[in-house]
Order: sequence, then structure tokens, then C-alpha cells
Amino acid sequence: MIIIGEKINGSRKSVAKAIAERDAAFIQGLAKKQADAGAEWLDVHAGTTPDKEIDALGWLADTVQAATECKICLDSPNPAALAAVLPRLKQTPMINSISGEKKRLEGVMPLLRKNKSPVIMLAMDDAGIPKTADDRLFIVRAMMMKMRENDVEDDRVYIDPLAIALATDTNAGKLALSTIKMIHYEFPDVHIVSGLSNVSYGLPARTLINQAFITLAMEAGMDSAIMDPLDTALFSATLAAEVVLGKDRFCRSYNTAFRAGRLLTSK
Amino acid sequence: MIIIGEKINGSRKSVAKAIAERDAAFIQGLAKKQADAGAEWLDVHAGTTPDKEIDALGWLADTVQAATECKICLDSPNPAALAAVLPRLKQTPMINSISGEKKRLEGVMPLLRKNKSPVIMLAMDDAGIPKTADDRLFIVRAMMMKMRENDVEDDRVYIDPLAIALATDTNAGKLALSTIKMIHYEFPDVHIVSGLSNVSYGLPARTLINQAFITLAMEAGMDSAIMDPLDTALFSATLAAEVVLGKDRFCRSYNTAFRAGRLLTSK
Repeated sequence: MIIIGEKINGSRKSVAKAIAERDAAFIQGLAKKQADAGAEWLDVHAGTTPDKEIDALGWLADTVQAATECKICLDSPNPAALAAVLPRLKQTPMINSISGEKKRLEGVMPLLRKNKSPVIMLAMDDAGIPKTADDRLFIVRAMMMKMRENDVEDDRVYIDPLAIALATDTNAGKLALSTIKMIHYEFPDVHIVSGLSNVSYGLPARTLINQAFITLAMEAGMDSAIMDPLDTALFSATLAAEVVLGKDRFCRSYNTAFRAGRLLTSK
Repeated sequence: MIIIGEKINGSRKSVAKAIAERDAAFIQGLAKKQADAGAEWLDVHAGTTPDKEIDALGWLADTVQAATECKICLDSPNPAALAAVLPRLKQTPMINSISGEKKRLEGVMPLLRKNKSPVIMLAMDDAGIPKTADDRLFIVRAMMMKMRENDVEDDRVYIDPLAIALATDTNAGKLALSTIKMIHYEFPDVHIVSGLSNVSYGLPARTLINQAFITLAMEAGMDSAIMDPLDTALFSATLAAEVVLGKDRFCRSYNTAFRAGRLLTSK
């Protein structure tokens, strides 16, 4: 499981404050904690107004890469901000995100051609998030064609099937799972990634729903997640799922995590 | 999810003691707790020497049916004990279990013909537990043919794919899951049931493994489990899985369980 740490996000109050005050120690603390907890990538999202975004995102990236060896996932809907910050990075960053939305796709494509950046691709376009797995796959196919035309290799692409809230649509989980299966079947070399908070939005005991979803999504073909690696329940669920799915040889990672006190053992 | 409560089992020390002392209050306490926690069936297993089994199993069945409305799952490898106790029951019991083992199958078949008992069928025969999903299915097919010849309807059959310990075989989970999928595909009307303790045997933080397994097994087609309905973590995982798999309309059961304080909310 490839973990993209989600905590350095300017839409969170404490992070917004740290960005406003350029509090490097706070940001670096979040970076180190997530790195120690097993994050391979660290998402950085400025969450500021567009006029301040380049400065803030650049500062975040500099601050994070000074503190950890983790690779950075540059999170912005704004291609200009991505283009401005990208050259400051020591290691090739992941770009979060593109979608079938024309402006966004065309703005980011030159960056993808120039750099060997992996990229997160949302299964939606200018008409919004499609209601069926077929329609999402239709968008994914069109975007993948564009990627291949532009020499973006399949394994640089992380597709997010966009799970929506189960509280508003009972079928949202089934829809996300079948979208994952279809993408995985048709594009076996692309990564499938998911943010996990939407699916449980509006339900109680959200961790239980997130655990069930990540377990089932991993079986369907998801291999990466934008998540909080410090969420012990969720982290434990990913390791347990890998054991049951036969992906953890001799249960080594699971046993190691247990000995390190990193598994939830409330029961 | 059909829950078969596992707690009244003479291989547990406290239950063995209660059976030896004919301590009805203790057994009825276990029965009521499991019934309140959502068990539809209550497994009763005497766990005594064969010469005492009929008496003990009969007493257990009488004691349990005097205390709850739950149906009883008569658990014995001994057809004679099953035949002796069956007529004492007010509601048609489930029989646990038959397998491809000749003696067991032939001993129980007359009971299945006479009664409308559901029956648990283990995917093994006189040669033991097969190592591949194909070989297990081969046994299941032969047994299902026999069931149909004897007018045992498909939906009276609960097949246990016999998950073995992941700690001794990394592929045990994948094997169990594909066996479940194959059975579910070929016999869509049979139930698929699993005991959950074997799969996590020998691993730390076993609940995590059981949670992951039950979640994935439900997606594969398992619809019932021999489990402890008082295990909050496991019970919560089944409800969360039903939500994510779109089987809990408007998340009603999940929300109800939350309001009743029955969901694990450690985080």
C-alpha cells in the first residue's frame, strides 16, 4: 500500500495558521510524524487564496523537503502554482491533480511532458462526477488516451475513482468498488488511489466505514491512498487486508508493525 | 448477515463445567446474551465423550430453547447424537455438520430427508481438507448432487469453505476467498458460512485479521458466520461491510446499532 500523507493541508485550521505565520517547526513536525508512520509521499496543499498560493505552496514544499526524505505530492487545482513550485523540488513530485476538466488537463499536460511526475487523475470532467461506473470509465479512457499520446507512462498515473458519501447514496460503495475493478482490469499498470474521508461522511463511527471501504477497495485493485498514516485503526486495517489478500509474505509487515506497537489492539 | 452464535461450546472450559454441573442459569445467560446481540441461531456443542454426548446435547438444547426464541444449531460429528436430540426441539434445528466423509454424510442424510433442517457442509472429505479451491469445489459439487437427489433444497445448505490459518500459509485467505466466489457463482442459492477463528490463529491482534477476512468474505458471497455476536469489533465490521456493499438500505441497521451503543467507536 502506497500511503500519501494527507495532514499538511491548508484547509485544516492548525495548518492554515502555521502557513500564515510561516511556522516551519509545526509543518516539519507533521511531515516527520507522517514519514515515521510509513507515508511514502506527503501531500502539501496551501489552501490559500490564489494570489498567495504560489508563495505558500513553495514555502510548504521547501519546509517539508528540508525535514524528511519523503517525496512531495503537490496539491493544487491551479496549473500555474504547480508550474511555479515544481522546479524548487529536489525529488520529482507527484501532481495532485488533473481531471477530464479541459482547463486543468491542458494546464498540467506540459508539466507532465517535461517532468517524469506521477499524477493523480480524478474520474470526472467538466460535466461533474458521473453517476455510473461506465461513465467514469468513459472519462478515464479518454484521459488515458491523452496520457499515452503525451508519453505519460501508465504507471505514473494514479486514478481516483471518486467515492462519494454512502450516507447520501447507498450504492456509492458498490459504484466505487466496481469502478476500481473496471479500471484495474482495463489498465493493469495504473495505480488506483482514493481519498477515504468522503465515503464515510455523514455516518457515525466513521473509522469503521473507512476500514471496510479500504479493505474492499484493496481487494478490488486500489494500491494507494491519500490518508492519515497516524490513524492507527485505518493503518492497521490496511496491514490486515494485505495479510488476508496474501500480499504480506510470512505476515512480516504485520508482525513487525505489531511489535512496534503500531497495530490497534483494543480487543 | 446470518449470525450463528458460537459461545455454547463444550470445548470452552466454563461451558464444560456448566454442562457437567447442569448449570442451566449459566447456559441460559450465554443464550440470552447472544440472542440480544443479534444471533439468529445458537450453536450448541456438548464437547463430552461420546457415551455422554446424547444426554449432554439434549440437556443443552432443552435448556437453550427454554430461554430464547433463537433457533438451535445442533453441533456434533456424531449422527446418532443428532438423531436422538433432534425430535426434542420445538423449532427445526440446523445441523452442524456434514462433510464429504462417507460415514458422516450417510449417517446424517436420513435426518435431512425426514426433517427440513438446514445443514452446514464442510468442503472436505475422507482424504482431508483439499489444498486448492478447485479440489474443494469438486467435493462440494459431489455433495450438492447428493443433496439434490435427496430433495434437500439448495437454500437449506450452508457451505463452509474451511479457511485455514494465514500464519502457516500466506495464501490461505486468497484460497478461502476464491473458494467462496466459486461456490457462490455455481450455487447462488446456497448459503456460505465460515468459522472465523482459524484464519487468524497464530497471529497477533487477531481481531484485525478477522475483521479484514469477514469484510472480504462478505463481498465474495459469504452470508453467514459462526461467531461471537458479543465481539463488538467483529460485529461492527459486519455492519460496516454491509453499508459499503450497499446491503444496508439508508444505512438503517448501522445507524440503529450506533444509537444502541453497539458499534466500536474507539476512534
